Amino acid sequence: MALVFFLFAFLLCTITSHVVAIDFCIADLKGGDTPAGYPCKSPTNVTVDDFVFSNFKIGKPNQFNFSFTPAFVDHFPALNGLGFSFGRVEIKRGGAIPMHTHADATEVIISTGGTYIACFITSDNKVYTKTLTEGNIFVIPKGLLHFGLNIGKGKASGIVVFSSEKPSVQILDIALFGNNLDSGIIGKTTYLDVAQIKKLKALFKGSG
Amino acid sequence: MALVFFLFAFLLCTITSHVVAIDFCIADLKGGDTPAGYPCKSPTNVTVDDFVFSNFKIGKPNQFNFSFTPAFVDHFPALNGLGFSFGRVEIKRGGAIPMHTHADATEVIISTGGTYIACFITSDNKVYTKTLTEGNIFVIPKGLLHFGLNIGKGKASGIVVFSSEKPSVQILDIALFGNNLDSGIIGKTTYLDVAQIKKLKALFKGSG
Amino acid sequence: MALVFFLFAFLLCTITSHVVAIDFCIADLKGGDTPAGYPCKSPTNVTVDDFVFSNFKIGKPNQFNFSFTPAFVDHFPALNGLGFSFGRVEIKRGGAIPMHTHADATEVIISTGGTYIACFITSDNKVYTKTLTEGNIFVIPKGLLHFGLNIGKGKASGIVVFSSEKPSVQILDIALFGNNLDSGIIGKTTYLDVAQIKKLKALFKGSG
Amino acid sequence: MALVFFLFAFLLCTITSHVVAIDFCIADLKGGDTPAGYPCKSPTNVTVDDFVFSNFKIGKPNQFNFSFTPAFVDHFPALNGLGFSFGRVEIKRGGAIPMHTHADATEVIISTGGTYIACFITSDNKVYTKTLTEGNIFVIPKGLLHFGLNIGKGKASGIVVFSSEKPSVQILDIALFGNNLDSGIIGKTTYLDVAQIKKLKALFKGSG
Amino acid sequence: MALVFFLFAFLLCTITSHVVAIDFCIADLKGGDTPAGYPCKSPTNVTVDDFVFSNFKIGKPNQFNFSFTPAFVDHFPALNGLGFSFGRVEIKRGGAIPMHTHADATEVIISTGGTYIACFITSDNKVYTKTLTEGNIFVIPKGLLHFGLNIGKGKASGIVVFSSEKPSVQILDIALFGNNLDSGIIGKTTYLDVAQIKKLKALFKGSG
Amino acid sequence: MALVFFLFAFLLCTITSHVVAIDFCIADLKGGDTPAGYPCKSPTNVTVDDFVFSNFKIGKPNQFNFSFTPAFVDHFPALNGLGFSFGRVEIKRGGAIPMHTHADATEVIISTGGTYIACFITSDNKVYTKTLTEGNIFVIPKGLLHFGLNIGKGKASGIVVFSSEKPSVQILDIALFGNNLDSGIIGKTTYLDVAQIKKLKALFKGSG
Repeated sequence: MALVFFLFAFLLCTITSHVVAIDFCIADLKGGDTPAGYPCKSPTNVTVDDFVFSNFKIGKPNQFNFSFTPAFVDHFPALNGLGFSFGRVEIKRGGAIPMHTHADATEVIISTGGTYIACFITSDNKVYTKTLTEGNIFVIPKGLLHFGLNIGKGKASGIVVFSSEKPSVQILDIALFGNNLDSGIIGKTTYLDVAQIKKLKALFKGSG
Repeated sequence: MALVFFLFAFLLCTITSHVVAIDFCIADLKGGDTPAGYPCKSPTNVTVDDFVFSNFKIGKPNQFNFSFTPAFVDHFPALNGLGFSFGRVEIKRGGAIPMHTHADATEVIISTGGTYIACFITSDNKVYTKTLTEGNIFVIPKGLLHFGLNIGKGKASGIVVFSSEKPSVQILDIALFGNNLDSGIIGKTTYLDVAQIKKLKALFKGSG
Repeated sequence: MALVFFLFAFLLCTITSHVVAIDFCIADLKGGDTPAGYPCKSPTNVTVDDFVFSNFKIGKPNQFNFSFTPAFVDHFPALNGLGFSFGRVEIKRGGAIPMHTHADATEVIISTGGTYIACFITSDNKVYTKTLTEGNIFVIPKGLLHFGLNIGKGKASGIVVFSSEKPSVQILDIALFGNNLDSGIIGKTTYLDVAQIKKLKALFKGSG
Repeated sequence: MALVFFLFAFLLCTITSHVVAIDFCIADLKGGDTPAGYPCKSPTNVTVDDFVFSNFKIGKPNQFNFSFTPAFVDHFPALNGLGFSFGRVEIKRGGAIPMHTHADATEVIISTGGTYIACFITSDNKVYTKTLTEGNIFVIPKGLLHFGLNIGKGKASGIVVFSSEKPSVQILDIALFGNNLDSGIIGKTTYLDVAQIKKLKALFKGSG
Repeated sequence: MALVFFLFAFLLCTITSHVVAIDFCIADLKGGDTPAGYPCKSPTNVTVDDFVFSNFKIGKPNQFNFSFTPAFVDHFPALNGLGFSFGRVEIKRGGAIPMHTHADATEVIISTGGTYIACFITSDNKVYTKTLTEGNIFVIPKGLLHFGLNIGKGKASGIVVFSSEKPSVQILDIALFGNNLDSGIIGKTTYLDVAQIKKLKALFKGSG
Repeated sequence: MALVFFLFAFLLCTITSHVVAIDFCIADLKGGDTPAGYPCKSPTNVTVDDFVFSNFKIGKPNQFNFSFTPAFVDHFPALNGLGFSFGRVEIKRGGAIPMHTHADATEVIISTGGTYIACFITSDNKVYTKTLTEGNIFVIPKGLLHFGLNIGKGKASGIVVFSSEKPSVQILDIALFGNNLDSGIIGKTTYLDVAQIKKLKALFKGSG
């Protein structure tokens, strides 16, 4: 009977080996990106380490009391084609995440500690605000202006999930003041005073 | 032979009439929206007028010298499930479209006249600017801050296409200053001076 | 404080520069097409002109009184992955667009002038006909036979939007009579008289 | 130890029973269709028979020597959301499937017997023809004109798969001649002679 | 000038208020599910609490030393249409997660503490094993058999992300032994000895 | 008039030849796979044979009384991007298809003869069983454990359709016993006796 089973296993293996394994599509980052993601790394070169991202650690806090560690498809090729990615954030006491948007990604915050106010503003101009503590999850719909504040007595930390393998971030101040966009035009299209614009351009190293 | 053809037509019709027509899915706006769009209006109630949007006209210009006429799925149910929608815009001499984003829609501007500067800022903080005239098409990627200026001697007009049936718009000033978001928090997260914030809150009828 | 802001901007930039910009995916037409579109042009080579299509102009009318200017992804790589594309059409007095289908694209006609009858036939054999004038939009569901007639006293013009980056067109007469498909087989499968078929094959330069 | 296992099973069941089963989404045909398919039948009402279509049999041949048995989502609700459906066809000796298109479906023919010529015409006006016998599969790309001929000495049969849960069919002759579309307009847009049109309108019971 | 701004804001609001807010689609769980998700809750009834899941806490450990807290769309309607969901897991010393599959979901494990071996087996019969500690992320491709073991000296914990709003879990033993599937048939199709099957059926409360 | 038609055809051809044919995307298997499928073979190299799979024949039965002939995208490149593929199966009297899953594919069985019991087990631990005969179709939802038994007096045969171009199969016994996964770990995570595991490892040529 062992022989029979051997043959059986052999035959089934033969059937399944006609095609290369397709249980996954690890990104070949050197291949060109496409609207659906990167080409797949050849299955024969894939090892268990392709499925692991080891450095999802809290980074050193910066002067602004927060750190952010991304695990996007460019850092973690196993996310290719999955449509989501991750970040790890820690905000020191008193810190804030400034006003920003993610162009094509809903953000989900999983609070892992501290007391953090998350806030977003919808396109019909309503303000949604929530104080988050450990074990809370909060959803920030795609593309909307949002920000956060650590209002607790210690650090606030979280794991964030984005509905994109490659979420982009547009920090409002950097976008408005950190490039060479003419101050007069900024004024005309944002109704900010030119003096205010020039003050922030100086801070954010913009010109114009 | 006519009889044969009659039977033929009859039989084919029988085959095809087993199921209701499914060449289209006109939105039943009274049904609940879903992540994929509205339920389909019953095909038996559909008429040719369901495929027509008649009022894609230039509206009256407002005090700011522009008009905007939307043809989104809520106005034009034939767009249900198509993933795009339309707008018609006319900007008077000297007018501007203020800084804004569309959370989940790429915008395509088809210039139909005048001289119009379109500008967007990417998430890596580059400014892309182009002067558009009749017969130019310009693509503004999804979710990015952008604005426009009529720099010509007359009106500027265009047809815009959005990569969403229901594009939303978030006007920067209204989002920041047109609600009750606390001025201190706005200051902390945008680096704007509180005096500037309060000035614009007054203009945009916000409080806080 | 300026120093602080400088550091802040620096740090945020560092965060965002870990990955290349992904706000857009301009087609690299030399890369192989995929079911989801072309590979993305390297972001470092992208300029503002990649977002512009300059020649969306009315072409010279042909002997049949119409012109058609396409802006598909192969002409306008910024449309890559967007799922729609454009055409500009002008039909002289008395002109017609002959019976045809678009295999995988819904067509939307935005009338920009004149008086034009648009007509499509559904799979349950109903005829939907509408007379379009400036400011009307008309939707022709995917894959159905349709045609148009300029019934006005002057030109009729429009902008068309297709629900595909690469819409194809199958002109009925060219498909039936402009190749070497055997006349007997055409007769057997269309019930047209062979004399009629041969007459049109002569006109459309087909053989067989 | 049995107790332990009992508790284990109990606990896991508790975990998994928090939500209703979502391994499938059988169509609730009475619910309104949406662009993504029908609402799901309540899982508590689903039985094994919801996964079965029993009548995928060859039907009686008609006067034209063929039969067609559809298994689309409206006949077989288990196909809801799957994006494909089936048909069973048998063509008697000498029979033909007339020129037609499927607006939104690629068709795959799996020949189960006989000798059958399948033919499609692409949008760049090339004719692709293949003689199929048992054990051949043939793909007809979405939306293109195609037809078939039984050229064997007996019946030809096949199973067809469509890349749509609800494929539509547009038979060329019925679309052109089986309704009240004006003969003059048909002539102007198809270049067919009006006499030919009127002859076929008589056969296909059209008017105009 | 204040008046002008007021009018401006008013007009823009008018433009944007033509359609209801569509920045999000919170699930209306009472509406029928569809292949694309639940219908959207009416935006007028949405509050900030719809975006919050408060109980993403570690549950009480069971006899097997693990707890699992799901945050799927049925528990957290804000995930509707997003295509992912969450779970929180804690495994006591010596605990194991038994062999199981998620039919339609890739699983991502974000280790938050302890020492945990995660393992999956691909369809070409390779075993991928990794020891995870705090700050590691591991991807388990969709639909494959996998399991985990706490091999550390204390608890192991993690946050899991599934590539489905409604991930299902099929525990191998419960599927095989916890129902009334005939032991002879199980033996014939799994090659397990009937005595072994009956022993496990007794433990998992199955019959047959 | 012939000249006019010639010019007409010429002009239309010119319009349509601006872009390469895009009615299909035959897989270029040498190009790297992507999450959306293979790159498209250059249309200029495509012939009618690219649309044909000729060997969809019943293979020789193995010692276990069944044969399986796959027509997946790697065997039949015309399936690229279609999202489904095919197999042909024949099971001799008394044969069984052992317990297995398809990680990312719903399976549809179209019975073409014999008497075959198909069975699947859902994630809420219900057993769905059906006896299939010629002309029955049965749907096995994605990712679930299932198996089949020929209970008739002769062969049972079928055509299977998978909702994936590249369905994978995970045979339960081969996955558990046909590799070097440690028997103790298998025991701990499946509750099988180690003796049973070692017996099957011997049969399926596994080690550990």
